[in-house]
Amino acid sequence: MESQKISLDDVFAPRGVAVVGVSANRMAFAEMVLHSLQQAEFPAIYPVNPKYTEIMGLRCYARLTDIPGPVDHVVVNIRAELALQLLDDCATKGVRSVHFFTAGFGESGIKENAELEQAMLKKARTGGFRIIGPNCIGLFVPRARLVNDFGNPMEPGPVGFLSQSGGHAQNLPGFSANRGLRFSKVVSYGNALDMDEIELLEYFTRDEETNVIAAYIEGVRDGHRFAAALKKASAAKPVIIYKGGRTEAGMRAAHGHTASMTSSVDVFDAVCKQRNVILVRGMEELIDVIVALRFIKTIPTGKQVALVGAGGGPSVLAGDEMEQEGLKMPPFSAALQDRLKQVLPVAGSILSNPLDTPNMASPEAIQAGLGVLANAADIDMIVYHLGFHPISKWGMGFFAARERIQQIVDAMRTGLGSSGKTLLIAMRPPQTLAGMQEFLTAQEVFVENELPVFHAMGDLARAMCRVIDWHNTRRM
Amino acid sequence: MESQKISLDDVFAPRGVAVVGVSANRMAFAEMVLHSLQQAEFPAIYPVNPKYTEIMGLRCYARLTDIPGPVDHVVVNIRAELALQLLDDCATKGVRSVHFFTAGFGESGIKENAELEQAMLKKARTGGFRIIGPNCIGLFVPRARLVNDFGNPMEPGPVGFLSQSGGHAQNLPGFSANRGLRFSKVVSYGNALDMDEIELLEYFTRDEETNVIAAYIEGVRDGHRFAAALKKASAAKPVIIYKGGRTEAGMRAAHGHTASMTSSVDVFDAVCKQRNVILVRGMEELIDVIVALRFIKTIPTGKQVALVGAGGGPSVLAGDEMEQEGLKMPPFSAALQDRLKQVLPVAGSILSNPLDTPNMASPEAIQAGLGVLANAADIDMIVYHLGFHPISKWGMGFFAARERIQQIVDAMRTGLGSSGKTLLIAMRPPQTLAGMQEFLTAQEVFVENELPVFHAMGDLARAMCRVIDWHNTRRM
Repeated sequence: MESQKISLDDVFAPRGVAVVGVSANRMAFAEMVLHSLQQAEFPAIYPVNPKYTEIMGLRCYARLTDIPGPVDHVVVNIRAELALQLLDDCATKGVRSVHFFTAGFGESGIKENAELEQAMLKKARTGGFRIIGPNCIGLFVPRARLVNDFGNPMEPGPVGFLSQSGGHAQNLPGFSANRGLRFSKVVSYGNALDMDEIELLEYFTRDEETNVIAAYIEGVRDGHRFAAALKKASAAKPVIIYKGGRTEAGMRAAHGHTASMTSSVDVFDAVCKQRNVILVRGMEELIDVIVALRFIKTIPTGKQVALVGAGGGPSVLAGDEMEQEGLKMPPFSAALQDRLKQVLPVAGSILSNPLDTPNMASPEAIQAGLGVLANAADIDMIVYHLGFHPISKWGMGFFAARERIQQIVDAMRTGLGSSGKTLLIAMRPPQTLAGMQEFLTAQEVFVENELPVFHAMGDLARAMCRVIDWHNTRRM
Repeated sequence: MESQKISLDDVFAPRGVAVVGVSANRMAFAEMVLHSLQQAEFPAIYPVNPKYTEIMGLRCYARLTDIPGPVDHVVVNIRAELALQLLDDCATKGVRSVHFFTAGFGESGIKENAELEQAMLKKARTGGFRIIGPNCIGLFVPRARLVNDFGNPMEPGPVGFLSQSGGHAQNLPGFSANRGLRFSKVVSYGNALDMDEIELLEYFTRDEETNVIAAYIEGVRDGHRFAAALKKASAAKPVIIYKGGRTEAGMRAAHGHTASMTSSVDVFDAVCKQRNVILVRGMEELIDVIVALRFIKTIPTGKQVALVGAGGGPSVLAGDEMEQEGLKMPPFSAALQDRLKQVLPVAGSILSNPLDTPNMASPEAIQAGLGVLANAADIDMIVYHLGFHPISKWGMGFFAARERIQQIVDAMRTGLGSSGKTLLIAMRPPQTLAGMQEFLTAQEVFVENELPVFHAMGDLARAMCRVIDWHNTRRM
């Protein structure tokens, strides 16, 4: 007999969390979760292990059923053989969800382990709780203070992320934090025994906290249901999917990773394209696209760029990378060049497109230059690049002061006025500590001003093409 | 009447350097050069500007001819109109080389400015000195303590770099320093009025200090002579060229940048291919290829990779990126998998290729795993990846200790023994300060151990394909 399924809304708002299988090994997952829950000040945390009476200042319980308070969510890092007995305790305790970090089930390719998974699912159905995973990193829900890692930002945001990979689920919030991305829920679902990509897609489609749906998917079990869920999701919100396992080696890895039988890449791509889903090829590109969707107020319909910044070689490279990825950098008209000549120096400058002038780090030149470009009819967006040129080399102190960057931003805003031109920032991360410090300070100010920041010209161009194509298809 | 040309060997070893047109503006190029020469402890530095008697603690001369000691090299940052008069002083003073940072000559597209350039060249020929540029950043010769920027490593090394872009010339030594690259001479030659890409190629071909020739070229004036120089260079040493201006926008930028009429990209590519020159598409790729050439002891002839590291999602991504770029990741044979099972845990592991096991950061597991792979016949190289997985997340302190990384390196070496398998390291740079600190420490230890480090799987694969193809063509 099946109980009614617990809703994901309840799963994502647990009152108490038990961590089963904690040890004294600080490299172990369970203790890492315990520690990060403490740091996030989750209100009711219960370590479980019969070998200890206290762990990290918390009372440790021998068994889940010994815990006095309500436990809604259980994080599990015990051997697979002990899973069924633990699930009986979960039923007794009346938990809502059980997240298995434990691996060695279906993905191992061993028949008995796959059968064990099915027995676990049966226990979940009769016990009235949900299973997340197994073989995954579980949940990060900032609003509920439910974390599975350190150092990720605790402010909730509009991005929902479902990931078949635990690594990607842990990495995305941290890696994109400095670019200004914040998350509603991040769910790593591993072998997808119970909670799967379809249910999560449906959830994010209706979740009011989520405006952008991002996904890392290795394989789907039910292509037709998946396509239907995708159609509804994409009609409601932008959906971006990074599909892992595109080559033979990637597919082999995906099968060993989450037991995924990756469907034909061509079919997957075609299904996504038909539903106007944005397909990307890696985690960095996923971040780039979300940044564009999150911070561009009005997505342009055209692909004509004016590139502004200092440095000859970098401008040539930028021009090449832009056009290779599909953006256009039209030459400036003679009239436009004349207007630029009136406000910018000629020596050492290229008053064409890309517009390269040595004083493009001064607020006055930026305001004047962007003031002219704001009125150029055939320009859809302006890319300002910083940190590709010696004179703006990170770590030299030129941009170490927040005020200096804020002056640049203010000059840009004043220059653009009410023209509605899209403004994008490109800056290359340095490889030194002093450089990184200055780079992060500058990036922080741009991001606080809700400007989209990209780390390479080619990446910027690729992301913008995807977003503009998506936007134009949606308008049709 | 033309004097005999000064040799580049003399140009690259000046006894005294004058910097003409210094000002009190610390953002200005001349003062930056002055400051960096001081920091590099160049023995005889002479600022020149009639407005000052002292600059930065150095006696400032009103005119070049006022300087008492020998001046071999002159760095110029004065207005273009003043160039001819200065060159008369250069002839009087008997200098060997004059580097014009000053721009606004041929590249401006103005007829008079192009004519001025030709008059300058004539003065150089009759005066018996060389001109570098104009419109460039000039020379970085660590052995001579001749610098044009701060913070680049002062140990000489085997890489020679000729660059039509000053920005790229300044960036390359600093950007590649942490990856272990050191330079013999870095020459930014801008408009190539006198010293051009052909002369520099010929110089690096015979220069005993240079083992690898790298070039950034926007356009060549004499295709036939260039092709001949390329043939000789490539027969002697590996030559890697990044050609700027591949698209319409890039070509337009290159023309405005250094007055280059970029030849047809297809012709350029064909000429390079025929001479077995390694062509790359950007500065990062240039670094990747040099790193591979510099640190791989025996370049493999095959492209079969075993990928080793932790993290399911990252392994899938790595597999995809490897194969998309042309490397192969063959599945491990049943026998090989059995041997791995004897030394590595099954749970949470994928004992296939990519080999993904959670304890792949422990020296014991690394030594055991690589020990098995060392004897796998169909594996040409082993890629160890670090910093793509939560448990090796930078900034958590797991790899903060140099000793820990050294233990990993030692374990790798012991595991590989005398198998001769190529070992490559892949680690993703983080975006936080604490992370960057830990990342740089780990990278430093790998580089000290002369291991090639790459920052993305796709980048590693692309560079390795280029180097293996080059190597196999050379062997034919």
